[in-house]
Amino acid sequence: MDKVNLSDKFARIDEVYKPKLVAQYNDNKILLTRARGDFVWHKHDDTDDLFFVVSGRLVIQLRDRDVELNAGELFVVPRGVEHCPRADPEAEIIVIEPMGTINTGDAEGSSLTAEPERI
Amino acid sequence: MDKVNLSDKFARIDEVYKPKLVAQYNDNKILLTRARGDFVWHKHDDTDDLFFVVSGRLVIQLRDRDVELNAGELFVVPRGVEHCPRADPEAEIIVIEPMGTINTGDAEGSSLTAEPERI
Repeated sequence: MDKVNLSDKFARIDEVYKPKLVAQYNDNKILLTRARGDFVWHKHDDTDDLFFVVSGRLVIQLRDRDVELNAGELFVVPRGVEHCPRADPEAEIIVIEPMGTINTGDAEGSSLTAEPERI
Repeated sequence: MDKVNLSDKFARIDEVYKPKLVAQYNDNKILLTRARGDFVWHKHDDTDDLFFVVSGRLVIQLRDRDVELNAGELFVVPRGVEHCPRADPEAEIIVIEPMGTINTGDAEGSSLTAEPERI
C-alpha cells in the first residue's frame, strides 16, 4: 500500500518488453513496460487491454488502422481485436490487464511472452 | 474505440469533483476528475480505488496517514479503507472504478455524489 512514482520505477527498467508489476487494482495488474520497436501480433479473447503512454510514442497497429499514442494518451484495445504495439523509437507505457493474462495473448510461446516481475 | 488525449479532455472539464467517463476497460470506468480542496470521507467495501495524478497535487488522506501524490504518481486505496482525497490547491486526476461504483462510496447522498457524464 505504497504510492507508485512512475519516473522512479522506469529508472529501474532497462529491458524492453519485459512488463513490471507495480500495483494491483482488484484483480488487475498495473504494469510498466519499456517498449522499443515492434511487439507481436496477438489478441486477448477474454479481456480488453488498456495502454497509456507516459513518454515517447506508441503506435497500436490494428488490422485496419494505426492508433498513434503520444505521452498523455490512452487507448483501450477491445477483447478479441488483433493488435501489435510498435514503439517508435521507444516509449514508456502503462498496461492494465487482468491477473493471469498472458502478455502475448494468443501468441503465447512467442519469444516476447514474459511473466511480470514485481518492482 | 478512439484514443483519449488527457489534455484535450481536461480542457473541457471546468467543474470540480464531477467525474467524466472517457473510456471503459472491461467492467471498469476510466474517469477524469478536476479536484480542488477536500472531497468527502468514504470507503468502498467491494472495490479498490485507483488514483493517478496527471497534474497538480492530491493528498489521499487515510485515517492513519496522508499519501501525497504529485503528477506521475499513482496509488490504489484498498477496498474497505476509509479515505478522503484533498487537492492542494487543484489536481487533474484519473480514477478507475468498476461500473456501478458510487463516487462517494458509503457517503452516498453527499452533495458530492455524482454520476459520471461521458465526454
